Amino acid sequence: MQENLFIAEGSKIVPEIISSGFGSPQFIGTEKWIASNQQILQGIQIEVAEEMELEKISTLSTAPEVIAICKIPAQVNPVCEPGKLYLILDAIRDPGNMGTIIRLADWFGVDAIIASEDCVEWSNPKVIQSTMGAFIRIRPTYTDLKGFIESFNPQIPILAADLEGENLYSSSFIPEGCLILSSESHGLSTYLESLISRKLHIPRGLNSSGKTESLNVATAAAILLGEFTRRRAQS
Amino acid sequence: MQENLFIAEGSKIVPEIISSGFGSPQFIGTEKWIASNQQILQGIQIEVAEEMELEKISTLSTAPEVIAICKIPAQVNPVCEPGKLYLILDAIRDPGNMGTIIRLADWFGVDAIIASEDCVEWSNPKVIQSTMGAFIRIRPTYTDLKGFIESFNPQIPILAADLEGENLYSSSFIPEGCLILSSESHGLSTYLESLISRKLHIPRGLNSSGKTESLNVATAAAILLGEFTRRRAQS
Repeated sequence: MQENLFIAEGSKIVPEIISSGFGSPQFIGTEKWIASNQQILQGIQIEVAEEMELEKISTLSTAPEVIAICKIPAQVNPVCEPGKLYLILDAIRDPGNMGTIIRLADWFGVDAIIASEDCVEWSNPKVIQSTMGAFIRIRPTYTDLKGFIESFNPQIPILAADLEGENLYSSSFIPEGCLILSSESHGLSTYLESLISRKLHIPRGLNSSGKTESLNVATAAAILLGEFTRRRAQS
Repeated sequence: MQENLFIAEGSKIVPEIISSGFGSPQFIGTEKWIASNQQILQGIQIEVAEEMELEKISTLSTAPEVIAICKIPAQVNPVCEPGKLYLILDAIRDPGNMGTIIRLADWFGVDAIIASEDCVEWSNPKVIQSTMGAFIRIRPTYTDLKGFIESFNPQIPILAADLEGENLYSSSFIPEGCLILSSESHGLSTYLESLISRKLHIPRGLNSSGKTESLNVATAAAILLGEFTRRRAQS
């Protein structure tokens, strides 16, 4: 794959690319898939290929019936404003977690995702597949997090998920600003510590064994964004 | 692998099996791993193997330094009582989702997990790895869901996650009883529909594009269990 291109595969994601036109896509599909999807393909150019040819291009274990090869658009730097919700990703390297977080961010209407330069690229094929199409609507901006956060209006709260933080449910935090998520294996990067205004942790349930040490970062993102959404709906 | 055995791999999970003694385990490790883990291995029998031999047994892409081969214990049928929280899994076939749900159930102190017979086995190696050890403490009981739910005390609420349900945050549901989760691609199995007392859905955020159609089932489990835990702590 050329450096400025990425691949999206399968009959769930490709139709979303067709209808959005995202990334000036080039489509390749089997004759059978094309024949049964005439309606969404009106006015769209698509190359016909044998299943074997798609197998060669595909990154999946089972080759899809259709793929899209898209251009990676230029990165847009988000403008940080009060009253919005930004997700800040610190060293998230697992593609499945990154994709799930992008899908969640679209579901909950996060305003922007900002990622450290050592996070996995959103254009990684495994990320693309696990977003289920949400990358069309929201993608991380990769940048030096420290410089980025320091450039913020000091009135914007910088919250972080951390096992040592305040109880997510009983804390009086305001559900806006930046929410920093780190990979569970490495914890919060030291260089971010001094920038944080408040740390939050997800409490265990009453009957928990207390032996599961942490949650997966995408799962933690889900719980945090759920609670932010609940509070935002009430305010 | 023999039918009544399963494999757990790597230096995160195996020490938890060592300290719990779960599944009458048999351990195999490299000389190097054994030498640097003398403390946790006191009184424990472990077979020495070359890395190459571990590679042959391993199910991971990178062979671990240590593995445990364990017996699958006999299944215990949970007793259903009022005031408890049971997670009911309907056709969850993805091993990563199943493992993540087991990890969440341990974190939040779910009382039992009951799974339909077409769910992936908890002893599947990919499930084991993604539980991060939580399977030692909580495992699904596989059964005919319909018969199981019908045998319940009618006072126990049967809740289900469903895109057509009441808003999770504004609904007045009581956070106990059974919570049914289905795979996002198939939705709730028809045979369960008539047994449900209340359906809940996870609302999108205010600024959501509205175009992400659903959430991954493990992500949905995280959000629902988070909200159940918040309400249970308050009551």
